Amino acid sequence: MFERIVICGVGLIGGSFALALKQAGLVKTVVGIGRRRETLEEARQLGILDEVATDWAVALKGADLLLLAMPVGQMASVMAAAAPHLEAQTLVTDAGSTKTDVFEAVYTHFAHRLANVVPAHPIAGAEKSGPSAACADLYVGKKVVLTPLPENEPTAIERVRAAWAACGAVMSQMSPQDHDRVFAAVSHLPHLLAFGLVHEIQARGNAEQLFSFAASGFRDFTRIAGSHPEMWRDICVANRQALLAELDAYLTELAYLRALLMQGDGKALESLFAEASAARNAWAEKHAK
Amino acid sequence: MFERIVICGVGLIGGSFALALKQAGLVKTVVGIGRRRETLEEARQLGILDEVATDWAVALKGADLLLLAMPVGQMASVMAAAAPHLEAQTLVTDAGSTKTDVFEAVYTHFAHRLANVVPAHPIAGAEKSGPSAACADLYVGKKVVLTPLPENEPTAIERVRAAWAACGAVMSQMSPQDHDRVFAAVSHLPHLLAFGLVHEIQARGNAEQLFSFAASGFRDFTRIAGSHPEMWRDICVANRQALLAELDAYLTELAYLRALLMQGDGKALESLFAEASAARNAWAEKHAK
Repeated sequence: MFERIVICGVGLIGGSFALALKQAGLVKTVVGIGRRRETLEEARQLGILDEVATDWAVALKGADLLLLAMPVGQMASVMAAAAPHLEAQTLVTDAGSTKTDVFEAVYTHFAHRLANVVPAHPIAGAEKSGPSAACADLYVGKKVVLTPLPENEPTAIERVRAAWAACGAVMSQMSPQDHDRVFAAVSHLPHLLAFGLVHEIQARGNAEQLFSFAASGFRDFTRIAGSHPEMWRDICVANRQALLAELDAYLTELAYLRALLMQGDGKALESLFAEASAARNAWAEKHAK
Repeated sequence: MFERIVICGVGLIGGSFALALKQAGLVKTVVGIGRRRETLEEARQLGILDEVATDWAVALKGADLLLLAMPVGQMASVMAAAAPHLEAQTLVTDAGSTKTDVFEAVYTHFAHRLANVVPAHPIAGAEKSGPSAACADLYVGKKVVLTPLPENEPTAIERVRAAWAACGAVMSQMSPQDHDRVFAAVSHLPHLLAFGLVHEIQARGNAEQLFSFAASGFRDFTRIAGSHPEMWRDICVANRQALLAELDAYLTELAYLRALLMQGDGKALESLFAEASAARNAWAEKHAK
């Protein structure tokens, strides 16, 4: 399928993509490029990379596919650096958690290569990070959302789709705006809320006392507050319009809950909790792995 | 230790207390009383109960200990029904998730028995419910908070503490006000927030689309939104003053986060996320089982 692929950002996401394609026998040479030389060396020692590059001209020479797998805040500068060396036949995809900002960077820096640039977002956990966390089956059964450009060649979309599908992913497709709204609601807002809760508590004088009585409900609710600060900074900044809309919808819900508490309206609270509980348990039955 | 204990509300919490004391060989006869005859019969068949009572006079005759293990909304009416039959030597404890409201009910209905009424709150998960979920080791290593009355006999506190400790619990002690503030922060508010998030999403026209892209972060964040609506209605109503104070502190945090998003202030967002992430991961290292 591919003679030579280049991965920028060889952590959990980029490394797992390389391992999956290698395991499927679909790539000959995997080249890594990125900020940290040690990370790239580690990835080579782990068998994820065949070559480590420091220079975009060398890395991209004869490349079939480039995967951008850094936090989204680095997309524009990486694209700017890669653009002069991107050959006409090289497919490009990415693993960014937001898509309208990636589109903006693509139209700015890859305007000469729009036919072959097919943005994507793999929905795969990021509790662990770094190349040592990478594994060939990370994407098996996970969703990958493609957000193609109107300028894409149909064959480019097809080949990028096939690459992610070869990793075991379940493919779907959306516009970048829809993508960013959906993930603002079900991922970015929950992360923001969990970060906020822990931040608010840890700043208090009695934080130690509070934490010492936190139990399993707190543990699960705040798990995502342990996520990578830089990655989530980039997501929140990149997707802040959609995230603000979600936050405002949620603040309206909290204002309603606050009114019910003020009134001590047990009947309305119970009915709201029952609707939420039924929806949550139905979701878990259908979607939870 | 006990000849005869009476448990009102023989579900996960009450049933596990009975099984733990039985396993420790510290009780001869366990009597159950409650709203639903079928639940009590089930508990008898499971070996949790030795007797099923329908009448407080019969149940409490010669009892050493009464455990109240219903949702807190039922405390006052159950105490009113039990009060005329409560003998002078009978110890009373409860498993209510809130404590200032339990105090209010105790002073109203058990005013003649204050020496022996020692409120408590076992911090044990409630994902499953009913007598079939009960097990002898539910409380092993879990915290139980005692909130004694100023009127308590020291020996009464000691015996109630010993009973919970015999279930394997790690004992601590607080005022009811402190208790309700602490749990408003680390338990009641997270539940309210999770219920609110799922309620807000499930009411939308594109709820199906949103749910279909929700992944493991959403799963853990919303797990507690699957909790028992009646139990959480009672907790929220009973503890609404402390909960409103927590909600308002959290709304202030969200207003700050909203301002950072509006300004696209990545530096401040990253530093807030880093503080939260460090605190959350330190907590998990210290407290998570």
